[in-house]
Amino acid sequence: MPPKVFRASFRVAWVDTDAAQVVHFSNYLKYFERVEEEFYRHLGFTFDDVAMQGYWFPRVEVFCQYRKPAKFNDLLEVELTVEELKEKSVKYGFKMFKQETQTLIAEGYVTIVAAGRQTGKAAPIPGEFVEKLKPYCR
Amino acid sequence: MPPKVFRASFRVAWVDTDAAQVVHFSNYLKYFERVEEEFYRHLGFTFDDVAMQGYWFPRVEVFCQYRKPAKFNDLLEVELTVEELKEKSVKYGFKMFKQETQTLIAEGYVTIVAAGRQTGKAAPIPGEFVEKLKPYCR
Amino acid sequence: MPPKVFRASFRVAWVDTDAAQVVHFSNYLKYFERVEEEFYRHLGFTFDDVAMQGYWFPRVEVFCQYRKPAKFNDLLEVELTVEELKEKSVKYGFKMFKQETQTLIAEGYVTIVAAGRQTGKAAPIPGEFVEKLKPYCR
Amino acid sequence: MPPKVFRASFRVAWVDTDAAQVVHFSNYLKYFERVEEEFYRHLGFTFDDVAMQGYWFPRVEVFCQYRKPAKFNDLLEVELTVEELKEKSVKYGFKMFKQETQTLIAEGYVTIVAAGRQTGKAAPIPGEFVEKLKPYCR
Repeated sequence: MPPKVFRASFRVAWVDTDAAQVVHFSNYLKYFERVEEEFYRHLGFTFDDVAMQGYWFPRVEVFCQYRKPAKFNDLLEVELTVEELKEKSVKYGFKMFKQETQTLIAEGYVTIVAAGRQTGKAAPIPGEFVEKLKPYCR
Repeated sequence: MPPKVFRASFRVAWVDTDAAQVVHFSNYLKYFERVEEEFYRHLGFTFDDVAMQGYWFPRVEVFCQYRKPAKFNDLLEVELTVEELKEKSVKYGFKMFKQETQTLIAEGYVTIVAAGRQTGKAAPIPGEFVEKLKPYCR
Repeated sequence: MPPKVFRASFRVAWVDTDAAQVVHFSNYLKYFERVEEEFYRHLGFTFDDVAMQGYWFPRVEVFCQYRKPAKFNDLLEVELTVEELKEKSVKYGFKMFKQETQTLIAEGYVTIVAAGRQTGKAAPIPGEFVEKLKPYCR
Repeated sequence: MPPKVFRASFRVAWVDTDAAQVVHFSNYLKYFERVEEEFYRHLGFTFDDVAMQGYWFPRVEVFCQYRKPAKFNDLLEVELTVEELKEKSVKYGFKMFKQETQTLIAEGYVTIVAAGRQTGKAAPIPGEFVEKLKPYCR
């Protein structure tokens, strides 16, 4: 069975543009994170669930290739997949398209680790969460 | 004796601009806050001092008039004064100039209250801090 | 007939929070602008329409009172009204609620002017736009 | 002769933190860009010079590894080097340290291309700029 893909879409806000009249490159990371947040809600997790179990998910590595500029008011569609699932980390892959033309705008990945909020140390990802991620693994 | 004025200057970063090729209006509030942070360092306070005494300084009111656009790479100069000092709140006034031409870019104020970090409730501003603010009061 | 109210809602993203674990005060202005953008789409205007007619809508004045903190993942509901409609400017009023509890989070206004993109000077708001705003006027 | 390194330092602002009480991961890209901007000023270029010659420098690839969290008020020191200089692109390497402890906070790179502002197409980097970059090349 092919891995599941999570999709979300949203509009580019004016504040996300810069003086070149395109989306500032740092904002793609915000978009990736926003999609990750929607993904967790889709899986049925709330932030409070995770918080109560005493975890953060700090980012340890980020990569992004910018293919075509995104502009104000563009409707962007993002695909999230699980590129790699390890005991203590997850690597999410992202592809971002302009919905109207299906042009690839950017692609990249973000690797996060599970970390105890008190200790700050890497810790195994909770089993319940692992189970929910599995269908999205390549 | 006239009230003291605190001055700080900094450059407009590319990321602060928007597609109209001027600084996005929300960023003026960030600039005001940055100057407030430098003001505290100038007074000899560190964040850790304040934190250790168990205070936050949440904002309760903000006002800003935009006079002329600021652009990428402009060197901006900001004047901070204390417009009003009450038992539990401070109102900081700000005037922002383009240094090269001394053009007024924006002016406004930010009112903050002292609040206990645990209780979340308004609390008297620590006396040591009040003393340091007094010379800047109108 | 009472004035119409435009409503939009959205979730607080992690990136919008600060170390006090609440939404940073500058982000409320971004939220107001986002709602304004959705309002224009609701009225049937696209950015390109406006751009083609050669207008910007720079902000000239902003005011915000912060009532209660908003937190990560909160679903916020914003009400937009037209407080004042003049020949060359519009004053939008905003009220922001936490949807779950209907707590008032913040309220304020943003005044914008119509300005020619070439000249940079204030200009009468296009008549077609005025007509669409009228039902929302207090 | 070893390659030259450009260094700049700045303080973490409150607005750059998130609810985990550390700098939000997207802000490291803003820091890299800010250092790049100071580098250009150090080389004697102003934005207007570049603009007058009709160039943008859009980002095509970004990579960042997050080693240790940065916090509010930290004084960060960034080292910029030229990792690769091609006809139409430059790859800048960045290392970011907490000044007080010399702890490595993050490292990464940003690849930019020269692009004509009218055409949007990649174009050779102006020779005068290439000469100034050479001493920083690995």
